[in-house]
Amino acid sequence: MAQFAGTPVGDAMVYATQGGKGLRGFLVIESARLHGVEPESSVKAAAAIEALHAYSLIHDDLPSMDNDDLRRGRPTVHVKWDEATAVLAGDALQTLAFELLAQMDVDPAVSIDLVGSLARAAGAGGMVLGQAQDIAAETADSPLALDQIVALQQNKTGALIRWSAEAGARLARCDVAPMTRYADALGLAFQIADDILDVEGDAEKAGKRLQKDAGAGKATFVGLLGLDGAKSRAEALVQDAEAALDPYGDAALVLKQAARFVISREY
Amino acid sequence: MAQFAGTPVGDAMVYATQGGKGLRGFLVIESARLHGVEPESSVKAAAAIEALHAYSLIHDDLPSMDNDDLRRGRPTVHVKWDEATAVLAGDALQTLAFELLAQMDVDPAVSIDLVGSLARAAGAGGMVLGQAQDIAAETADSPLALDQIVALQQNKTGALIRWSAEAGARLARCDVAPMTRYADALGLAFQIADDILDVEGDAEKAGKRLQKDAGAGKATFVGLLGLDGAKSRAEALVQDAEAALDPYGDAALVLKQAARFVISREY
Repeated sequence: MAQFAGTPVGDAMVYATQGGKGLRGFLVIESARLHGVEPESSVKAAAAIEALHAYSLIHDDLPSMDNDDLRRGRPTVHVKWDEATAVLAGDALQTLAFELLAQMDVDPAVSIDLVGSLARAAGAGGMVLGQAQDIAAETADSPLALDQIVALQQNKTGALIRWSAEAGARLARCDVAPMTRYADALGLAFQIADDILDVEGDAEKAGKRLQKDAGAGKATFVGLLGLDGAKSRAEALVQDAEAALDPYGDAALVLKQAARFVISREY
Repeated sequence: MAQFAGTPVGDAMVYATQGGKGLRGFLVIESARLHGVEPESSVKAAAAIEALHAYSLIHDDLPSMDNDDLRRGRPTVHVKWDEATAVLAGDALQTLAFELLAQMDVDPAVSIDLVGSLARAAGAGGMVLGQAQDIAAETADSPLALDQIVALQQNKTGALIRWSAEAGARLARCDVAPMTRYADALGLAFQIADDILDVEGDAEKAGKRLQKDAGAGKATFVGLLGLDGAKSRAEALVQDAEAALDPYGDAALVLKQAARFVISREY
């Protein structure tokens, strides 16, 4: 990003990667550690997923998409700069994600496995498909049913969370199945917690506008399950995420705590 | 893209890849052939660069960017669908480019070299940097000087053309230097020809609005060199592109003809 330094697009790229929870990057580094891979070997994959996530937020916040003016307690990129800068900064952050994966000091076969799996998670079979489904749902005649929301969220937010948790197993060339189960439960719990925060959270702590989804008539987990139903579903999912890591024993303690954090967070 | 079939985003992705000259994909396949690599091994790299180019056109045409309503003789994606679909279809086409490179049936070290070099060409050190420079130039107090336009265009359009021409050498693990020289001359000739077409071309054949750049007060090669000066500069560049391929002898005839086509085309 050196050539970008001091340009609005470069500044916007840095700005958009700041202030988040860093959940996805954390999952990459912790899942790598769990599989015996040192952080020095996983940090670029962690940076890649955070760059990709930041790109998705910038574009998702655009006026033609969710039209959000507040993110992580600060103005969104198109508000602080302008729409053209937001489009380009998002585009360049996606590119940067793949550039970082190509720079990793690992076996090229591992590196290309990470590139291919991230592309599948981010594109036609994952995140963008979920975003397209989300937009289609907004203009549909009837709100989505529970299984449709689950499918939508597993694409829109679940796919990148899954990639993050699986990355360590891919780096160590181990079976990804336990991490996939962990991530799918975690990702859904995360989204249910988001819907709960949208209803009963503190906008200042959350750093973004709340009561937006329900107000827009969007189908949410809280709307479909009720507040108590959503909370017990999230709890059950966290227990499943924890159980998925049992084969790893005590080494998985930090990732189990992360799953619990996801439903207790206030932001 | 199977999951996208029949959705607006999927339809827009297909639509945006149709009707172009296919110059970049052609350069990949021909440069591969020149280095002894069969089309079966280069076709995914060719598809990748065409997907990446299509993404850049969709986003470049957005109202917040160049605000173009006509491309390749048809309505642009945000006109035919809407802005959200255009943002997502562009995003997914960029992702698809990297997915295709990861799927190539070649040595992973070659595949990751193609991923890394494409990311550098498309992002911070290439295309998006050029787009950001282009936007900055529009709001600058004075029009760009010749060397600034050359630098801008070598980023904005030159970087992907360079990657395309170099791809065959990368696939065969050969020195890329002759292809780099060929591509840099070709890319600049291409852009000068674009500026000439913008002034004296036929909008119907070109399939897009003309006289746009000069009308917007943008600095162009024709504005700086005059029509005759621009034509002789383009001719000199084509001769340089041809000379760069002399080491390859008669095998490079098709690529030499491509360079000549670039300045004689009417679209």
